[in-house]
Amino acid sequence: MDIEDWRQKIDDVDRQLVRLINERAQCAQAIGRLKRDSAMPIYEPDREKIIFQNIARVNAGPLSDVQLRQVYERLVDVMRQIQSEEMAPEAENQAEATELGPND
Amino acid sequence: MDIEDWRQKIDDVDRQLVRLINERAQCAQAIGRLKRDSAMPIYEPDREKIIFQNIARVNAGPLSDVQLRQVYERLVDVMRQIQSEEMAPEAENQAEATELGPND
Repeated sequence: MDIEDWRQKIDDVDRQLVRLINERAQCAQAIGRLKRDSAMPIYEPDREKIIFQNIARVNAGPLSDVQLRQVYERLVDVMRQIQSEEMAPEAENQAEATELGPND
Repeated sequence: MDIEDWRQKIDDVDRQLVRLINERAQCAQAIGRLKRDSAMPIYEPDREKIIFQNIARVNAGPLSDVQLRQVYERLVDVMRQIQSEEMAPEAENQAEATELGPND
């Protein structure tokens, strides 16, 4: 395989990764709604510790656990962002509702 | 579904993500070896631009393009790390070879 072949393979992996990352984001949103309804905090260090343990356990390389964790730290950060958007959308939704009018 | 159910779904997605991220890393290593043999640079801004365009094109949300790109910037950083390990491993391999002896 030449570089172009490997790049096509990467583009194919990327399509799958984008789908999965968004699937994970949908789960985070769902949890955000449940947390909102039960007044739970967004940041739960114990749960994040479990996530990092889980990924290290299934990591077969070539990435080292440290490198994989570098990727996941960013991923978890972004998931926290999307979860907080889900948990505190009242002001935004209110504005939209006002704009549309009560009967729209 | 309660929070525990969603977390089990996340753990399942994470297993698939770890496998795919490592598959991508294997491709980056293979490209690293080809680049080494043809003296190409590791950092190719045009290729990275294409990667970011590709992921934005297939992004169906809920992550915004900006959030997805935040994840990918870290991912691409780590891939560059692993590629540079692959391109300049001579010193390290030499040390290992010496340790094992020439006939091992």
